[in-house]
Amino acid sequence: MQYPLPIAHLIDSYMKLPGIGEKTATRLAFYTLDMPEQDVQEFAKSLTEVKQDLHQCSICGNITEQDPCAICSNPERDQTTIMVVEQPKDVMAFEEMGEYNGLYHVLHGVLSPMDGVGPEEINIKSLITRLQKQDQVKEVILALNSTPEGESTAMYISKLIKPAGIKVTRLAAGLAVGSDIEYANSITLKRAVQGRTSL
Amino acid sequence: MQYPLPIAHLIDSYMKLPGIGEKTATRLAFYTLDMPEQDVQEFAKSLTEVKQDLHQCSICGNITEQDPCAICSNPERDQTTIMVVEQPKDVMAFEEMGEYNGLYHVLHGVLSPMDGVGPEEINIKSLITRLQKQDQVKEVILALNSTPEGESTAMYISKLIKPAGIKVTRLAAGLAVGSDIEYANSITLKRAVQGRTSL
Repeated sequence: MQYPLPIAHLIDSYMKLPGIGEKTATRLAFYTLDMPEQDVQEFAKSLTEVKQDLHQCSICGNITEQDPCAICSNPERDQTTIMVVEQPKDVMAFEEMGEYNGLYHVLHGVLSPMDGVGPEEINIKSLITRLQKQDQVKEVILALNSTPEGESTAMYISKLIKPAGIKVTRLAAGLAVGSDIEYANSITLKRAVQGRTSL
Repeated sequence: MQYPLPIAHLIDSYMKLPGIGEKTATRLAFYTLDMPEQDVQEFAKSLTEVKQDLHQCSICGNITEQDPCAICSNPERDQTTIMVVEQPKDVMAFEEMGEYNGLYHVLHGVLSPMDGVGPEEINIKSLITRLQKQDQVKEVILALNSTPEGESTAMYISKLIKPAGIKVTRLAAGLAVGSDIEYANSITLKRAVQGRTSL
């Protein structure tokens, strides 16, 4: 359909977002047209700012406004432990939890040869360099998702680090708190049995 | 969860869009962070432009870059017929069809007392003023959606206009081309029977 140019451009932009096709993009564009001027201005501003003001921390790769990030530059954090995660969102989840006081390392992805993601495409090299520099690190916790890609990335990193004599651990796998055994998949159950703890 | 401020602002902005909750907004915000710089800049620009460059045509209420719009200022269009529609998108649908050569009037909504939308909230007054000024208008086609709100808005407008001796018509209701009688609802079937035409 022939839309006025500004609308057509906005539809194109919305369509670049994941899970938004032409129909939804069109609906959103026309909705934007009816939104209060100020909301749209703020939207445009926050889009620009998120790219301008946020960068990857040069040490851990987490997104941050200052460099190094608040966690890396905090001397109160336990400098002997590094938790390796896939995404900045994972850091926020662990910080929300509040029990972890060590450092992080954000990979920004996992190894996935099918999608052309090799060790060079994610922050593995910077982790190794970091471990060579910061020789006080005693433990690396691999907190990657329980997906095939997450597991194989964990194996890959573990093989690289272990020879240096650093302890490598991964998160416990088992039943989620509040979940039903009935609905758990068999691999989860297997892990839960393998990792059983005494009461 | 505690996000860096620019991300939190962007999540808030995404959440103002229809059908986008906090989870999706967060996913979109982090996706935006990984998008190419240029795409994000274009997105921000198109948001600003859609509000700056598009206005309602002072005659018909359609969205347009110039005022009056291309349709209203085109002397080739049939000045005796006005088609009343709900949204700018409807104008585009009829223009796409290509068979209609008259003018339009965009209401920007329908009467909906439940949502607090009365005759003052939509472009009904400007339609009446327009009909008083442009006395060459012979027919008003009410091309509103077949929803209860659309039907009652059509009835309301028709009652206002008819006393002036202007012909008021509405779109034919019936079976959609290519549709199955089996799946048509009974009101559609009733309309299709009432409006049957001879072969």
